[in-house]
Amino acid sequence: MTVSVLQDHELSAESARIFDEIRSTRSDGYIGNSWRALAHDPNLLRRTWETYREIMAPGELDPLTKELIYIAVSIANGCNYCIQSHATAARNKGLTLKGFMELVAVVGMASESNRMTTALQTPLDDRYKSAFADPTPK
Amino acid sequence: MTVSVLQDHELSAESARIFDEIRSTRSDGYIGNSWRALAHDPNLLRRTWETYREIMAPGELDPLTKELIYIAVSIANGCNYCIQSHATAARNKGLTLKGFMELVAVVGMASESNRMTTALQTPLDDRYKSAFADPTPK
Amino acid sequence: MTVSVLQDHELSAESARIFDEIRSTRSDGYIGNSWRALAHDPNLLRRTWETYREIMAPGELDPLTKELIYIAVSIANGCNYCIQSHATAARNKGLTLKGFMELVAVVGMASESNRMTTALQTPLDDRYKSAFADPTPK
Amino acid sequence: MTVSVLQDHELSAESARIFDEIRSTRSDGYIGNSWRALAHDPNLLRRTWETYREIMAPGELDPLTKELIYIAVSIANGCNYCIQSHATAARNKGLTLKGFMELVAVVGMASESNRMTTALQTPLDDRYKSAFADPTPK
Amino acid sequence: MTVSVLQDHELSAESARIFDEIRSTRSDGYIGNSWRALAHDPNLLRRTWETYREIMAPGELDPLTKELIYIAVSIANGCNYCIQSHATAARNKGLTLKGFMELVAVVGMASESNRMTTALQTPLDDRYKSAFADPTPK
Amino acid sequence: MTVSVLQDHELSAESARIFDEIRSTRSDGYIGNSWRALAHDPNLLRRTWETYREIMAPGELDPLTKELIYIAVSIANGCNYCIQSHATAARNKGLTLKGFMELVAVVGMASESNRMTTALQTPLDDRYKSAFADPTPK
Repeated sequence: MTVSVLQDHELSAESARIFDEIRSTRSDGYIGNSWRALAHDPNLLRRTWETYREIMAPGELDPLTKELIYIAVSIANGCNYCIQSHATAARNKGLTLKGFMELVAVVGMASESNRMTTALQTPLDDRYKSAFADPTPK
Repeated sequence: MTVSVLQDHELSAESARIFDEIRSTRSDGYIGNSWRALAHDPNLLRRTWETYREIMAPGELDPLTKELIYIAVSIANGCNYCIQSHATAARNKGLTLKGFMELVAVVGMASESNRMTTALQTPLDDRYKSAFADPTPK
Repeated sequence: MTVSVLQDHELSAESARIFDEIRSTRSDGYIGNSWRALAHDPNLLRRTWETYREIMAPGELDPLTKELIYIAVSIANGCNYCIQSHATAARNKGLTLKGFMELVAVVGMASESNRMTTALQTPLDDRYKSAFADPTPK
Repeated sequence: MTVSVLQDHELSAESARIFDEIRSTRSDGYIGNSWRALAHDPNLLRRTWETYREIMAPGELDPLTKELIYIAVSIANGCNYCIQSHATAARNKGLTLKGFMELVAVVGMASESNRMTTALQTPLDDRYKSAFADPTPK
Repeated sequence: MTVSVLQDHELSAESARIFDEIRSTRSDGYIGNSWRALAHDPNLLRRTWETYREIMAPGELDPLTKELIYIAVSIANGCNYCIQSHATAARNKGLTLKGFMELVAVVGMASESNRMTTALQTPLDDRYKSAFADPTPK
Repeated sequence: MTVSVLQDHELSAESARIFDEIRSTRSDGYIGNSWRALAHDPNLLRRTWETYREIMAPGELDPLTKELIYIAVSIANGCNYCIQSHATAARNKGLTLKGFMELVAVVGMASESNRMTTALQTPLDDRYKSAFADPTPK
């Protein structure tokens, strides 16, 4: 640890207020260590929580799909805590072991392909140059 | 480019056979440059294509969800070609600009959180220690 | 580009409002392309701007030091746009070419050391185990 | 561990000489495990030490600023040992817990922005194209 | 762990068959945990094993050289398990401690140079633009 | 570019001296842009050159093997300039297109395996725990 994991009695008033908000959204009110470490900076805790709540809310993409994206990024960025806490969250949202292994396979294959394409310095095909940047079908 | 992008008349018999397989699965038969660069090694081309076809097929996760995971990994790994070609593929599978911006927001937030958790060296909560490794609910 | 760079006449009311806020903090009112791409999602634009303004404000660390950290991370993460736009910002805040070359040297040496330490799997010394996690001097 | 951490009685003459140099610059003469693992290759140990001493010396940037850059890079590169040993070094040079949390926030936000900019493939603004490469003001 | 490490009596018929193939290529028949975790998805296990066997076979590059490349990539990608299991494999194929330290030095220096070149955004020399993409000597 | 590529008439005396050393080791005396960008900091140029010369010299590993390791790391770290300049160097040292494609395949597979192992959080087998850290055979 570079900083301690704050216990409830060690929180500033602002951090305690944010923890109450987080607790109210969880069936069992559990506050994970990642929030407890961030609580050393109440503004950072507040911004992170508010951003998290907005971004992970249902939109065009559903919450489980967003969790899968979150886990995939955490694997590629090599954050062990994040992989394990969000794999648990995804399971709680209905992901099966079989679905998790499919996620792992896609992440692995994409990484292989990413590195090979970088190695080969493949030039971009014209048709891939403006995925969402122009309105014509492709 | 470190290697050339092979044109149809430059292919080995084995690479030409794989290109025919790829073509038969595409409505317009287009073969992208990433396959044309891999074709310098017909066995690598064959394995990559067969693996791709199996992994991206519908399973517990649907093909568009797999594309989103693929793009997320490509962003984290920094492969520009892969981001753009798979963003185009995702659009062709129905992803809207709004959905793409949601994907971007999740990838950004996960990356922020990954780095902060790594910086803080947060210890793993007991409840996150065996996401799919034991059968009890959590 | 995966999405277009929005021009002023293409902005939603909310994105236009945020652009006005950004403009008011710049001597020449210039809005860079990174903001114009984010403007496709006005909420993402707003959150990113508000977070940026808070985090880059003077604190224990001064704004130029924060820019140096920002550039160092952008180099390690391989974001060319970010390196170049923030190197320009750092120059505008007083960084000299000599200072920039020192930054580059530290980033290079740290990366070398990071990889060698990972390769050697060096066990952590007891004295480094709680940098800011306990109050005793070390 | 992939290699052992050499104890003083196991050192080659050249490695022992370098350790004496390192010791002379530390108030308590402590030699960390990262040096003890490198000591298996005395030339690598020597070069690494001499480079470290030169690069981390005061210049346009002061030693604490250089430590902050070093930590930021170590977070982005995911080297846990490096994060913890240099966070300890930064604390010894005067960094407060509050300052460390600010560093963490900048690293997090830069990583978020790096990934979003990569995802959006934002084209570089002309004014960012030559940060220190031409002498005119920008 | 996110998934369990399957023991022999927990394997599906297909995974057991692949394990027999792996065992037959090892002098002591040991099956490492990386295979045992993949065995939750028998098709992923099969593809990974068949790809591994083909790619690591002798070719223009000999098996030890391929192991060195594998380890170098694992260091840069930050996979501790992979570094340690393949460093052991390389030792079993004849790599000495001295050779391993040379590998570590090259990986470190390349990483330093990679980051500095990215920081400086060095433009590519014409003579490096087509390494294997045109047949003329350079 | 963040800094300019220095031409011969713009060099400091120390940088010119280092360029003479580099030139004397090349059959055609060519000095690449990566050296010309580093030349803004003569001490950094000198250290980088001297380190490069020592590390890439023949040892337990031959110079071409070291180039392959260098390229593999550059791919994983995503440095396009480095990939292309060292792929050219490797070709000049005898690497064939077929050998290069084998390198690409190993880098791809290792990256796939790195990410999957990280995703699965596979626990390390006892036999892999001390590759070069104890003298007993394994």
